[in-house]
Amino acid sequence: MIDPIFWLVPASSVLALFFAWFFFKQMMKENEGTDTMKKIAKHVRDGAMAYLRQQYKVVFRVFLILTALFAIMAYLLKIQNPWVPFAFLSGGFFSGLTGFFGMRTATYASARTANAAQRSLNDGLRIAFRSGAVMGLVVVGLGLFDISMWFYILQFIIGALDSTTDGIIAADPSMKLIIITTTTLTFGMGASTQALFARVGGGIFTKAADVGADLVGKLEAGIPEDDPRNPATIADNVGDNVGDVAGMGADLYESYCGAVLSTAALGATAFVASNLTNIGINVNPTDSYTIQFNAVIAPMVIAAVGIVLSIFGIFMVKAKEGASQKQLLNALGRGVNISSIGIAIFSYLILRYLAIPNFLGIWGAMMSGLLGGIGIGKITEYYTSSGYSPTKHIAESSKTGPATVIISGIGTGMISTAVPVLIVGTSIILAFLFAAGFDFNNISFGLYGIAIAAVGMLSTLGITLATDAYGPIADNAGGNAEMSGLGEEVRKRTDALDALGNTTAATGKGFAIGSAALTALALMASYIEEIKIAVARIPEKVVAFAEYATKNQFANTDIHKATIPQMMEYFHLDIMNPRVLVGAFIGSMAAFLFCGLTMNAVGRAAQRMVEEVRRQFREIKGILEGKAEPDYARCVEISTKGAQKEMLFPSLLAIFIPIATGIVFGVSGVVGLLLGGTSTGFILAIFMANAGGAWDNAKKYIEEGNLGGKKSPCHNAAVVGDTVGDPFKDTSGPSLNILIKLMSMVSIVMAGLTVAYHIL
Amino acid sequence: MIDPIFWLVPASSVLALFFAWFFFKQMMKENEGTDTMKKIAKHVRDGAMAYLRQQYKVVFRVFLILTALFAIMAYLLKIQNPWVPFAFLSGGFFSGLTGFFGMRTATYASARTANAAQRSLNDGLRIAFRSGAVMGLVVVGLGLFDISMWFYILQFIIGALDSTTDGIIAADPSMKLIIITTTTLTFGMGASTQALFARVGGGIFTKAADVGADLVGKLEAGIPEDDPRNPATIADNVGDNVGDVAGMGADLYESYCGAVLSTAALGATAFVASNLTNIGINVNPTDSYTIQFNAVIAPMVIAAVGIVLSIFGIFMVKAKEGASQKQLLNALGRGVNISSIGIAIFSYLILRYLAIPNFLGIWGAMMSGLLGGIGIGKITEYYTSSGYSPTKHIAESSKTGPATVIISGIGTGMISTAVPVLIVGTSIILAFLFAAGFDFNNISFGLYGIAIAAVGMLSTLGITLATDAYGPIADNAGGNAEMSGLGEEVRKRTDALDALGNTTAATGKGFAIGSAALTALALMASYIEEIKIAVARIPEKVVAFAEYATKNQFANTDIHKATIPQMMEYFHLDIMNPRVLVGAFIGSMAAFLFCGLTMNAVGRAAQRMVEEVRRQFREIKGILEGKAEPDYARCVEISTKGAQKEMLFPSLLAIFIPIATGIVFGVSGVVGLLLGGTSTGFILAIFMANAGGAWDNAKKYIEEGNLGGKKSPCHNAAVVGDTVGDPFKDTSGPSLNILIKLMSMVSIVMAGLTVAYHIL
Repeated sequence: MIDPIFWLVPASSVLALFFAWFFFKQMMKENEGTDTMKKIAKHVRDGAMAYLRQQYKVVFRVFLILTALFAIMAYLLKIQNPWVPFAFLSGGFFSGLTGFFGMRTATYASARTANAAQRSLNDGLRIAFRSGAVMGLVVVGLGLFDISMWFYILQFIIGALDSTTDGIIAADPSMKLIIITTTTLTFGMGASTQALFARVGGGIFTKAADVGADLVGKLEAGIPEDDPRNPATIADNVGDNVGDVAGMGADLYESYCGAVLSTAALGATAFVASNLTNIGINVNPTDSYTIQFNAVIAPMVIAAVGIVLSIFGIFMVKAKEGASQKQLLNALGRGVNISSIGIAIFSYLILRYLAIPNFLGIWGAMMSGLLGGIGIGKITEYYTSSGYSPTKHIAESSKTGPATVIISGIGTGMISTAVPVLIVGTSIILAFLFAAGFDFNNISFGLYGIAIAAVGMLSTLGITLATDAYGPIADNAGGNAEMSGLGEEVRKRTDALDALGNTTAATGKGFAIGSAALTALALMASYIEEIKIAVARIPEKVVAFAEYATKNQFANTDIHKATIPQMMEYFHLDIMNPRVLVGAFIGSMAAFLFCGLTMNAVGRAAQRMVEEVRRQFREIKGILEGKAEPDYARCVEISTKGAQKEMLFPSLLAIFIPIATGIVFGVSGVVGLLLGGTSTGFILAIFMANAGGAWDNAKKYIEEGNLGGKKSPCHNAAVVGDTVGDPFKDTSGPSLNILIKLMSMVSIVMAGLTVAYHIL
Repeated sequence: MIDPIFWLVPASSVLALFFAWFFFKQMMKENEGTDTMKKIAKHVRDGAMAYLRQQYKVVFRVFLILTALFAIMAYLLKIQNPWVPFAFLSGGFFSGLTGFFGMRTATYASARTANAAQRSLNDGLRIAFRSGAVMGLVVVGLGLFDISMWFYILQFIIGALDSTTDGIIAADPSMKLIIITTTTLTFGMGASTQALFARVGGGIFTKAADVGADLVGKLEAGIPEDDPRNPATIADNVGDNVGDVAGMGADLYESYCGAVLSTAALGATAFVASNLTNIGINVNPTDSYTIQFNAVIAPMVIAAVGIVLSIFGIFMVKAKEGASQKQLLNALGRGVNISSIGIAIFSYLILRYLAIPNFLGIWGAMMSGLLGGIGIGKITEYYTSSGYSPTKHIAESSKTGPATVIISGIGTGMISTAVPVLIVGTSIILAFLFAAGFDFNNISFGLYGIAIAAVGMLSTLGITLATDAYGPIADNAGGNAEMSGLGEEVRKRTDALDALGNTTAATGKGFAIGSAALTALALMASYIEEIKIAVARIPEKVVAFAEYATKNQFANTDIHKATIPQMMEYFHLDIMNPRVLVGAFIGSMAAFLFCGLTMNAVGRAAQRMVEEVRRQFREIKGILEGKAEPDYARCVEISTKGAQKEMLFPSLLAIFIPIATGIVFGVSGVVGLLLGGTSTGFILAIFMANAGGAWDNAKKYIEEGNLGGKKSPCHNAAVVGDTVGDPFKDTSGPSLNILIKLMSMVSIVMAGLTVAYHIL
């Protein structure tokens, strides 16, 4: 019954992992350079791995507790899907594995990139980019592997059952498919939880080290960035890896899986026979099942083809000897563009082949996501690159001191949220309308459209993430070159690679935020499906629903066959429900609270780093003369401990808020929470990322010699902006991406609890 | 038919105006001090009045255009209530008048307060506070006057008609009451529009002057605050009046009227006979009309009694000779507390007398608003006063420079949003449940409860605003004392009054934000009523609704009798409607965009001020030696022009966004917009107000001698925080209060346009 095209999914995931391995091996063959370079790289690698071990230990404990909770809900209270504990663990495990592989690669690659940059700019680019590609391919490979594995296993087990113990599966393959997809969805919560810790912990680590290194090293001692005399410099380089590589990877792993899984879940319910009849398509049960099944695997197959195209695109990234900065950027762009155009064509063919009704509309929905992602990337570049007026204006405002730099950065960052919201809004509306055949009442199809728009945005993640993960590798290569005392020329080349990385990072950040918003919306829609299953699991609730349905003259009184509008009516998911209103307020507040907590966490962790660096300068004689080696490991340890200590409260709060909201306000409160959290979180994330990026580049613009250049009063003012921007763009902002997805995921997994027990 | 208790409403408004006049006259009898003091006060007064004239000119033009637009909609397109153009103008006129009276009083009072402070602290307090009371009483007096006037006129005209030209009024007094209240509501849009210009214009004026004066005067020239040698110092003092007095007054005038009017409108629809029958109250038509009428006038009568109690409370504010700071604060607190306890008792008696069904529940709803307001005030004080740890931590973070001051201020400001949201959320839920008899399905009664909670919060506005408007008067008195060279002792006393004002201002700000959120929610609920009237006005829409109602088996196919749940179903006001989702995103974004625009506006206007002050120091010889007088008027002019120029775009945008959203996305998009805008706007406003307040007080904490005191590195870092906080707390933050109410008001007034013409 499974269309052979499905096998493309596991096959392409293996292909991705193979090429990841291949690029890794290729990189490892390169020469790592001088002994000093090797030593420094080892310092950074050891620090990063030590951090990761520590991080995984904490996360492991959290996972144990949560798994126990899910097991109680599933096996004792019987209000939870029995597969959840396993799916949760597997999601967390694979997400952790991604971080491990990505970071290992990155830490092996930095010295090799620096060494290759001694030969030529292009050799440096090739190594850094292909190492970044390892991360990209591991993310999509492991993601699709986990998805197809679970889908196949559940298909095999649940598909073979005639009935099950929890009484919700009739001998109806179409119903089974709904159970299978809503179950698979819960594995996303494992990925989300691990991603949040990775982002928050990594973000605190990297910025504590960075701010600490800058405040004492640069400002107080007056030594340059990445100077080996600075005790925090290794920690700073470790931070780039744990924050920008592992954190970003886990974030996008989560979006990728969440988008594919929620599309599958929404497809399973949208394309059931009764819904098809509603829009005038009458088919026999077998055909209708095929349609439903194909709608479920469509996002997976599109993602699979996206992998193949990404690998192709990665090979297309080549630059001629002596290429300019612009040519390098074009080389990267070419790879991404080829993949994007490819996916536009192939996804059309796939959807046509799968013969899903209104496939052209669904393709249109997917395209609106793909184009939306590109649009957000471009606008992010406009607001954060010193080539355009917003960043230049921020730089200009440094003439009147740090206060005006901050005011204009915040002002511009806030203004910069407008266009991305309009872009995402347009994508949402178009995706819905295309997939719903321009009828707002075809709500299940429309929601499937929104979900597949997220898949469209993320389909070429293999290569887009490569261009993103490449940045910190280049940055670390620069650090290594500086600390190893390589020539001015090498540093210049690594700086060029780093600058290129900054542009791709800005685009990547916009992209990560945009996809998080769409994914969160898709998850929010899937939540309603989960609620249905949760109600079906509790006999009294099934009866209560049937009574309500009879009284309100629903076409069908069976909860399994309830439509989304009926569910919305039953649970009062309307705007004037005070639980929805208050939920929305709490959701918006959660974004601010989480952001504030992570900001202050960076502040405190940085404070400890400042004290340690000051102590070393004071107590270890000869550091500043370069005669004694600073205690790098101590700084790494402080950042590690600080991050572990500080990440726990905000992360647990992010898990706690949706659970508490569910228990107090019930389903409608949770839906309000998700709406408020997603909209405010999305916008706050853009604000923080863009303000931070603009401050960073305004500072660099001055360092390039404008407005008095380095060490001028303008530069000093701009450095304040940059330092404030550090936690904005690398801790709080990106963590919000995960917050909004995690809140949806927690709600989905806790649907059973919310339905069974709630106060209001 | 009108219960005689109604006459309490106009009577108390006249009483308020009488006491305002009385306190004004009392103050005017005081001695204005030396010639220098008089001269400086005149400078400030002339500047403020010049600004106000200029401001009103611009606002007048905007009003002309909007009135013409409404007239076209009403008389040509016939999609608008014919009374709107007049109601709109009257709302704007009265709001403008409030600003005029309040500011005139404040500018006459400052020198007199300084002079009285020469005698004793308490004399200073009395004059400043009673002058603040003029503002408070003018706001509530003119507000209730306008409300009762319109209510009476429409009652007289519409009430006398048997049928009307636009065909929506049958000979049904109950229906007429709905028309009357929804019509009166639109006068709030005039108040909103004028308030927005007052807040935004005033906010830009005051902070451009303040930031400009500080950056050049304090930092570059090293002269103290309010030094007469600083050319921007008069502008700075003018700013306190136009921003904090006129702006705050217009803001709260709007909340006050909006709350009373929306409660009346929601009461008219909630308490119609059919709704009463639904909850098991069967009454004859006459009795049912009386109940409905009493529910309409209840908020007005409560407000009227609140005025009497406020006046009583004002007289209770007395301090003994030689009172300490804490005793002074207690003296102010006593007045507010007496009024609050009084309103708690009297509102119970009023509601019981009016014999509204479930009057105890409605009283509970009102109390939850009153207590919520007090709670938000307290928590605001906790987060912004240097007596508590959050502000102290921000001060501590100055040890590592301005960047960490900014990081911790932003972090703490964001965290500070959590408790106020929980307070307001609790108020909303309790108000709804109390008024709805603990049944979430009694939605119209519940919404009436939310609206009356806003009335509860604002019922004692006469005195709470007095404690708030008192602050800038004391501040100006201090400025006057400094510039006139009065003794150290006087300055110390005015500083004590000013510090007291800062505490009451913080409380007042939390209060203004909280009431804005509740009012906005009440307006959002009223929007659905306006939509009903708008549909009823268009014959084809009436037919379309009847068809839909028949098909969906509504109990009644008459649009006039549609319930809120039916309207929500008809307009798809549910959470999964993509128009609602996108509307919510746009609403959240609007808050950020508006905030960013006003931040940048202050930045630009301040820049011009900086250049002018630098020019005067350069070109006018002898300024710094005190030998030549600076050109104060030129600085006032620059701030005026800057404010007028910069306020236009953000303000017009605030009017444009809801109109555009309505035209593109229809009713459901607008409702999403209001939800997103209110929740995000509320939280953003708290964040900005608290971060700004905490920075201000962290700086003052250092100035008191902590962490090295004035001119230490810590102080310099804290000054940066304070300067960033200026537009946060005095421009962007408070303007958001009005933004969220104005967006609701615009939507209400444009309901006809949205229903008649929309794309999606």
